[in-house]
Amino acid sequence: MSERWKVVIVGGGFGGLSAALRLNSDLVDVTLIDRRNYHLFQPLLYQVATGSLSAGEVASPLRSVLSRQKNTRVWLGTVVDIDPDSKRVFLADGTIVPYDSLIVAAGSQTSYFGHDEWQEWAPGMKSVEEATAIRHKILYAFEVAERLSDPVQRRAWLTFLIVGAGPTGVELSGAIAEIARQTLKNDFRSIHPEEAQIILLDGAPRVLMPFPDDLAEKASRSLAKLGVEVRCGATVKLVNKEGLTIDSGGRTDSIPAKTVIWAGGITASPLGKIVASRTKVESDKGGRVKVKSDLTIPNYPDIYVVGDLAWAADANGKPWPGVAQVAMQGGTYAAKAILRRVKNQPELPPFHYFDKGSLAVIGRAAAVADVFGLHISGFLAWLVWAFIHITYLVSFQSRILVFIQWAIQDLTFSRGARLITGRAPTDFNFNSEVSQMHRMPETKPEPVHALH
Amino acid sequence: MSERWKVVIVGGGFGGLSAALRLNSDLVDVTLIDRRNYHLFQPLLYQVATGSLSAGEVASPLRSVLSRQKNTRVWLGTVVDIDPDSKRVFLADGTIVPYDSLIVAAGSQTSYFGHDEWQEWAPGMKSVEEATAIRHKILYAFEVAERLSDPVQRRAWLTFLIVGAGPTGVELSGAIAEIARQTLKNDFRSIHPEEAQIILLDGAPRVLMPFPDDLAEKASRSLAKLGVEVRCGATVKLVNKEGLTIDSGGRTDSIPAKTVIWAGGITASPLGKIVASRTKVESDKGGRVKVKSDLTIPNYPDIYVVGDLAWAADANGKPWPGVAQVAMQGGTYAAKAILRRVKNQPELPPFHYFDKGSLAVIGRAAAVADVFGLHISGFLAWLVWAFIHITYLVSFQSRILVFIQWAIQDLTFSRGARLITGRAPTDFNFNSEVSQMHRMPETKPEPVHALH
Repeated sequence: MSERWKVVIVGGGFGGLSAALRLNSDLVDVTLIDRRNYHLFQPLLYQVATGSLSAGEVASPLRSVLSRQKNTRVWLGTVVDIDPDSKRVFLADGTIVPYDSLIVAAGSQTSYFGHDEWQEWAPGMKSVEEATAIRHKILYAFEVAERLSDPVQRRAWLTFLIVGAGPTGVELSGAIAEIARQTLKNDFRSIHPEEAQIILLDGAPRVLMPFPDDLAEKASRSLAKLGVEVRCGATVKLVNKEGLTIDSGGRTDSIPAKTVIWAGGITASPLGKIVASRTKVESDKGGRVKVKSDLTIPNYPDIYVVGDLAWAADANGKPWPGVAQVAMQGGTYAAKAILRRVKNQPELPPFHYFDKGSLAVIGRAAAVADVFGLHISGFLAWLVWAFIHITYLVSFQSRILVFIQWAIQDLTFSRGARLITGRAPTDFNFNSEVSQMHRMPETKPEPVHALH
Repeated sequence: MSERWKVVIVGGGFGGLSAALRLNSDLVDVTLIDRRNYHLFQPLLYQVATGSLSAGEVASPLRSVLSRQKNTRVWLGTVVDIDPDSKRVFLADGTIVPYDSLIVAAGSQTSYFGHDEWQEWAPGMKSVEEATAIRHKILYAFEVAERLSDPVQRRAWLTFLIVGAGPTGVELSGAIAEIARQTLKNDFRSIHPEEAQIILLDGAPRVLMPFPDDLAEKASRSLAKLGVEVRCGATVKLVNKEGLTIDSGGRTDSIPAKTVIWAGGITASPLGKIVASRTKVESDKGGRVKVKSDLTIPNYPDIYVVGDLAWAADANGKPWPGVAQVAMQGGTYAAKAILRRVKNQPELPPFHYFDKGSLAVIGRAAAVADVFGLHISGFLAWLVWAFIHITYLVSFQSRILVFIQWAIQDLTFSRGARLITGRAPTDFNFNSEVSQMHRMPETKPEPVHALH
C-alpha cells in the first residue's frame, strides 16, 4: 500500500502532540513539524528559570516520545505558509508538504502589547532559552549586588519585578522569594539576599484572575508570607535598563530594578494570521483563528485549528482559556475526527471543553487548586499539583527523577541547576558597571546576618 | 580583629577549589575569584555533550560549595594582571584586590596549535557552553540527515570526527557511537542512525598515550566493537565547513564531515604569560609558569601556581600531567603551606605528586583503568570509574541523582538531556541547505531497519 491518508500536524506542543499520539493507527501517515526537536512542558518552565530543574527535565525530544509510533515522522522545520486549496504546507527551507488533513497547533508567544522593545529588558517565559536567560539574570543580579557598595545601586540589583499575576507570575515570584530567603541565605558575604525586594505587578484588581475569589485571596496571603509585594491595578508604561514605570489609577511610579520578568500576556503565533488570510476566515485581535464547533475552519473541513491558536467559545459564548487542557483535548478531538473520516464513520459531536480545574503553586509545598469545583489550598493542593504534573511527565519518559529532585530540594532548600551559563539578553557588564563604584574593602568580610 | 592574612585564589577549578576548602581556618581571609559562578567537573563534560547529563549535574555553584565557610568570599570576575611587588591582583572591571598570599590556578584552555580559525568548525570540550554546542551539533546532524535525500550529503552529516584520542576523545567517540547505534535507533524514518560513521583521529601511534600498552589495546578493541573507526598517526592539516584534511605519513586525505569535535590539546590560560612576565620567570611554550619544588615562583614565596598552569617536574625530571589529581594535590599543598606560614610553623617538604592512576570510559559500562599500577578493564573498571566520580560529586552536593540517572539510562538506553537548545557556533541553516535538494517524498515512510 502506498496511499494512506496523510495527516500533517504543525506544532509539537500540548495540542499537536496529543493529536499525534491519538493518530497511532495504520490508516494514516503522520508528519509532525516543529521548529524545536522537543515537546516543552510549559507549566514547569518557571522551575527552569529559578534553577530547580534543568531544561532536560521539563522537555522531551519529540522523536523519542514518538519513536515507537511507526506511522509518524518528526520533521524539524518552520511552517511559513499554507495553500488550503491545493492542500499543501510550505516550510521556510522551501520544502512543500502535501496533506489530506491538516492540524494547525502552532500555539502562542509572549505579547508585549505593542511594545516589543521591552523584550530586551523583560524576557518572557515561553521558551527554554528565555527561561535560561531569566535564570542567568536572577543569579547574576545577586552576584553584582555582592560587588557593589552603593546602596541605591545595590537596591536596584536586588529588586525583582514580575509583570503579570497569572499562574506563571505567581509561581515565579514565589520561587524567587524562596531563592532569596532560603537557597542563597548563606552564600554571600556583603549582601543579605533576604533583603531582596520581589514585586508582582498586574493591571487586574487581584492576582490569579481565572481563579475563584477565595483561592486568589489565599494565594495573596501565601505570597505576602513569602515576602512578595503584590501591586494590583498597576499598568506598565515603560520598561528599560533602569527599571519600570507604572501607572496605578493615574499615579505614575518609577521602580528602579535590574531584573524585570514578563509573564504578562500572550498572543497567537504569526501562523494564525497567515492561515486566516489563506482561508478567508476571521481572526481576533490576538491573531487567533475563528473555528467552527468541530474545530475546523469554515469551508475547509480538512483543516483543524487547536489550542492557543483557535478562537472559539463554548455553548454559553464563554471563550476557552489558553491552557494546556484545552489544547490537549482539542488535539485529541481533531485526531479522533480524522480517524472517523478515514474509516467512513459518522461525525463526532461538537467539541466540548471539559474543565478539570486550575492550579497554581506558591513557593515550597504550597498551592491553590480549583479541582472539579473543589477549592483547596496549602500542602494538599501542592500534592494534587505534584501528582498531576508528575503523571503527565511520566507518561512521556522516566521522569521519576524530577520527583526525587523535588524531594531532595524540599529537604535541603538547595537548587541543583543554579548555574550561570551562556549570555543573558541583557548581560551585565562588570567591566563598565562595577569599576566606577567599588574597590574591595580592606576589612574582613562581614558575618552573615543570622536568620531564625 | 581586622588584619587576618589575606589569601586570594584565582580560579575555582580543581586546584583553586581544593585550596579554598583546605583554607577553612579562622587565621585567613580567603577570596576566590572566577569568571564563572560554578566549579565544573570536567571529566564528565563529555556526558553533557552527548546528552546523558545536564550541565547542572556536572557543575556546582562555587557559592554553595563554600557557603558554610565563613572566612571565604566568592567573587565573579576576570583577573587580567598582577603586581607581585605591591602584592595586588587586577580585575577586568578595574577592581584591585590586595593579597598576602596568592594562589594562581587559572587552568588551561583548548589549543588548536596555532589554527584558532578551526574553532568555528571544531568546538573544544572545556566549557559548559562548548559541551552544549557539541550536543546541538550532534543531534542536529541526525535531524538534517533525516531531511536529505542525496546520499553524499547525508553521509557527510552522518560522519562524526573526533580529533584527539586521549581520555576525552575516547569517551566522546564511544558515547556518540552509542547514541547512533542504540539511543536513536528507532527515532528516525528516512535514515538509519546506526549507519553513522564515527572516526577517532590522533597523531600519536595509538590511543590513550598516557596509559599502559595493554589497556590502550583493550580500549581500541572496545571502540572497534562499538563501531568507532580509530585512525592513529594522522595529523590534522585543515578543518573547515566541509570537513577535515589529514596527513597520514605523507598521504593526504580529505574526510567530508559536518561534525568535527576537538579533543586535541590544551594550552595554559593567558594569565600564565602575564604572571611569568611580571615575576620575570620562565614559561614553557604552552604558556605554563615555571615553579619551584614548593610550587612558588622563584623570588616570590607568596605566589603559588598550581594545576595546569604550573610547569614543574618530579625528582626524575618527568613533568606532571595536566590532570585533575595534580591540580587538587597542588591546591591542597599550597593551602597547607600558607597555613604553616601564618602559624609560623616549619615549611612543608617539597610537593610530591602521588599518582593514583588513570581511567577512561568506553561506552556503556566498560572502561580501562590503571589504578595504583593495577590494570583492569571492562565492567570492573567501569565500576571503579563510577565509584570515584560519584564520590567526588557527592562530596560537593547531593549528587546521588547522577547515579540514579546513569542506572536508568543503562537500563533503558535513553538519554534524558537530548535537547537542541540555543545556537551552535556553526548552526546549520535549513533554509539554504535543505531547500536545494529535498522535497518530501510522496510515498509512505520506509519501515525502520530491523536491528538484532
